[in-house]
Amino acid sequence: MGPIYYKERVDPERYLEIRSDEREEEEKMVVKVYGPDYANPKRVLVCLIEKGVEFETVPIDIFKDENRSPEFLKLQPFGSVPVIQDGDYTLFESRAIARYYAQKYKHQGTDLLGKTIEETGLVEQWLEVEAQCYSPPITDLIYKIVLDPIRGLTPDPKLIKESEDKLCKVLDIYEERLSKSKYLAGDLFSLADLSHLSLTQYLMGKMRKEYLIRDRKHVSAWWDDISSRPSWKKVIELWPGLY
Amino acid sequence: MGPIYYKERVDPERYLEIRSDEREEEEKMVVKVYGPDYANPKRVLVCLIEKGVEFETVPIDIFKDENRSPEFLKLQPFGSVPVIQDGDYTLFESRAIARYYAQKYKHQGTDLLGKTIEETGLVEQWLEVEAQCYSPPITDLIYKIVLDPIRGLTPDPKLIKESEDKLCKVLDIYEERLSKSKYLAGDLFSLADLSHLSLTQYLMGKMRKEYLIRDRKHVSAWWDDISSRPSWKKVIELWPGLY
Repeated sequence: MGPIYYKERVDPERYLEIRSDEREEEEKMVVKVYGPDYANPKRVLVCLIEKGVEFETVPIDIFKDENRSPEFLKLQPFGSVPVIQDGDYTLFESRAIARYYAQKYKHQGTDLLGKTIEETGLVEQWLEVEAQCYSPPITDLIYKIVLDPIRGLTPDPKLIKESEDKLCKVLDIYEERLSKSKYLAGDLFSLADLSHLSLTQYLMGKMRKEYLIRDRKHVSAWWDDISSRPSWKKVIELWPGLY
Repeated sequence: MGPIYYKERVDPERYLEIRSDEREEEEKMVVKVYGPDYANPKRVLVCLIEKGVEFETVPIDIFKDENRSPEFLKLQPFGSVPVIQDGDYTLFESRAIARYYAQKYKHQGTDLLGKTIEETGLVEQWLEVEAQCYSPPITDLIYKIVLDPIRGLTPDPKLIKESEDKLCKVLDIYEERLSKSKYLAGDLFSLADLSHLSLTQYLMGKMRKEYLIRDRKHVSAWWDDISSRPSWKKVIELWPGLY
């Protein structure tokens, strides 16, 4: 899939307020997001849409090692996606990029960080839980069930079971947490919830691991809530990737 | 080792400015940090000292499963350290706690976040690199060489070699980065550098992996710089842990 220039605004009225000369200037400076077909870049895409920030995407085919090219390694020395370019400013690591735009456009679109330093602390806590506890076992599962077979590798059912057991322990703690608050960090949909969308979506489709979510009442309701947001529906419509 | 009440201030004059009745009130509300003997809590301790925030420590013996007690799991459902209590506010995940205090006391002690949103973006980028790229292989090495033998497990030299090779690839990228800027995020000592202290210290002592740092000129100079800060010297003096 070629690049997509995502023009829609969360608040269309605000867009019309921009004078046409400013708008042209802005379009020249539109944010470029590399690697939209993969899960970690989608963390950035959904954040930009929630914040009403325009962007265009630059496809990177990891299966063709485009992420190992000298040009790409100049932008991202680890050879990972996403990386963004915003004028002269380059940034990588999806959660760092999401934090940057959530802060830069704090008062535009959805507030993803909370109103007080204490609320932001809880958003950061659950964002770290996503990164440190949730993401490793679900990423293992995705590699073993979806990505390794594309590369001709046969998944080991014992290793799949191990990753699934680890993920279940994390989801049990989420179930308890979400029985007490609507979202992970409290009453607000935040970066912490948003950050779960792109990996969790894998469970719900051809991986046939939907039951991991559906067997847990509060996790299931939370997933229905966050995944039905227009921002996320737009991301999976425009960049279906490997879901 | 019992609890330590850490009273020192980065700026002692500021401390003396506090009226004695306010000071008593503050001492009642002193921050409690659980698990100071382990590496991840030390990320919080060094941050609090840099910010001039008083705290006391609550020892948790993981080898005696104190982190699995019902009381502890009420504070931290995953059974990990650190967790902090600050009055009625409880927070876990070391990097989230460090961000919280770096933001809450932005204008007290060392500024760890940068002056502009763009600088903070780079701090967050390298903090994520530490969490996602640096921490996993070095943690594997620490488990295999230091922690598993305490539990009576014999380390597998092949797995040690694999983790070391992964860590070397990350350190090679750091070497390149640190040839261009004094610290990871630029000219400022930031949360990103600070966050490397507690795991890297393991390499320098009885693990005998000092050469991973010393073989790289710029990484070596960076390590000498960040590890000689009074805050870090104080942490390893008061909570030597397993170094």
